Amino acid sequence: MIDINKYKVNKKINLNDIETKESFENAKKRLKKLRKEISKLQDTMYAEGKYSILICLQGMDTAGKDSLIREVFKDVNARGVIVHSFKVPTELELKHDFMWRHYLALPPKGKIAVFNRTHYENVLVTRVHPEYIFAENIPTVKMLDDLNDDFYHNRMDRINEFEEHLSNNGMIILKFFLNISKEEQKNRLLRRLDIPEKRWKFSSGDLKERKLWDNYQNCYQDMINKTSTNYAPWFVVPSDDKLASRLIVAEALLQEMKKYNFKEPNLNQKDLDNIEEFKAQLNNE
Amino acid sequence: MIDINKYKVNKKINLNDIETKESFENAKKRLKKLRKEISKLQDTMYAEGKYSILICLQGMDTAGKDSLIREVFKDVNARGVIVHSFKVPTELELKHDFMWRHYLALPPKGKIAVFNRTHYENVLVTRVHPEYIFAENIPTVKMLDDLNDDFYHNRMDRINEFEEHLSNNGMIILKFFLNISKEEQKNRLLRRLDIPEKRWKFSSGDLKERKLWDNYQNCYQDMINKTSTNYAPWFVVPSDDKLASRLIVAEALLQEMKKYNFKEPNLNQKDLDNIEEFKAQLNNE
Repeated sequence: MIDINKYKVNKKINLNDIETKESFENAKKRLKKLRKEISKLQDTMYAEGKYSILICLQGMDTAGKDSLIREVFKDVNARGVIVHSFKVPTELELKHDFMWRHYLALPPKGKIAVFNRTHYENVLVTRVHPEYIFAENIPTVKMLDDLNDDFYHNRMDRINEFEEHLSNNGMIILKFFLNISKEEQKNRLLRRLDIPEKRWKFSSGDLKERKLWDNYQNCYQDMINKTSTNYAPWFVVPSDDKLASRLIVAEALLQEMKKYNFKEPNLNQKDLDNIEEFKAQLNNE
Repeated sequence: MIDINKYKVNKKINLNDIETKESFENAKKRLKKLRKEISKLQDTMYAEGKYSILICLQGMDTAGKDSLIREVFKDVNARGVIVHSFKVPTELELKHDFMWRHYLALPPKGKIAVFNRTHYENVLVTRVHPEYIFAENIPTVKMLDDLNDDFYHNRMDRINEFEEHLSNNGMIILKFFLNISKEEQKNRLLRRLDIPEKRWKFSSGDLKERKLWDNYQNCYQDMINKTSTNYAPWFVVPSDDKLASRLIVAEALLQEMKKYNFKEPNLNQKDLDNIEEFKAQLNNE
């Protein structure tokens, strides 16, 4: 079994000290087994209707978020999982506070929601490009100087409170940073450019963002250090090997689900008492 | 290959004349193959972002809707499919017209939405129990006599218009009635009562609705005859054998998807012209 605590952030991390590459033997086979167990537990969680799960996925372009979603949730009943890919906010979304669109997408009890990019973009892409914040028309933000560390740390405090509130109401929250090296991103971008069927995923903007790599890494690191909590921990997942990253996410999810002892609800006592009568009724039609 | 036209409704049907039981050899293996093809086409449909798919599932209690969803969509990227199970309308939903909650749940381009029970409940359960309509507070509905055939046929006309509009805007609509025999429902209800882990799915209300079986069948038949259209056909799927019903639905879906020749979008011309430059930029960093 994989030691998940190795990836869970419960003390200050420095991304430079963390390996982006790790591999496991029989990763494919092991993932298959985990998937089936996740699926089974999710069925029970759905029946019970007491908990929901929020999976937050963050990572640089090409980190493997989409394919991870495909592979980890393959065996979960489609009824039980909702994926939201958050893109550039729309005009309507910008007319609300920065959490609004994420709030609307939260999973109902019984279901898993996967956020492909998340509310954390509000302290990532908008920290690297603070001028984006102006489009939010926030009363206290008048100039670039207002968008200092305090501004983003304040947002992180709000996010922590939000997640604590959700957790207190039965939401299980797991956050994964798919950690790839700059070199591996280069290989993957080149691959996108080389393979005609993959080309549509490429955008020249990807190369511009890549030039801001160090800036992004700093923002990720600060964000992870400030928002990894008991009720909503971050996992830094070595993702240069895609199979390994999927296996780690699946293992973390499964281990977390197991803690809650999901149980099918009982039939109400009145119906339970009448089971033999119900059967007779059907048999004697 | 299964002849899908056998199940597609393009002339008046009489449910009494239609077999509820049909079986296929190697159904499991064949379904697996279809699933993989569906998944591949859906990936391209997602990339293209031009079409969406709406799958409507209707059927009596225990017809196998939930397990069909699990099995047919297993290989589709979770990103690409959204399942909505429509229950008794909430207070908020009742404050809107009967289509509102279904409109909100429609799939965006690129995705498949599966409606587990659908807008058709507005001419099914509410036709068997017309008194439910009073909760909708419709100005023209004053007494039970107002809820005559005309009332429900008028709703069906509106539904046809709604679906034609969606179809004209790029939505592919397929509707499946999972057709089981009354005998098979009895067996499945008894099974729910017998197996403790299945019991939570049972409700004594199921037995009450079962007593209205013929009434439901008449409403289904009238609805299917009036709302099976070129742009949104109904399929009557023999469902006493669950494997067969899943196979037929998957086959119908795949055959329909193939008609549209989904294609990955091209990179814009400017980026296409610069591909070699982008590669050089990465390689010479």
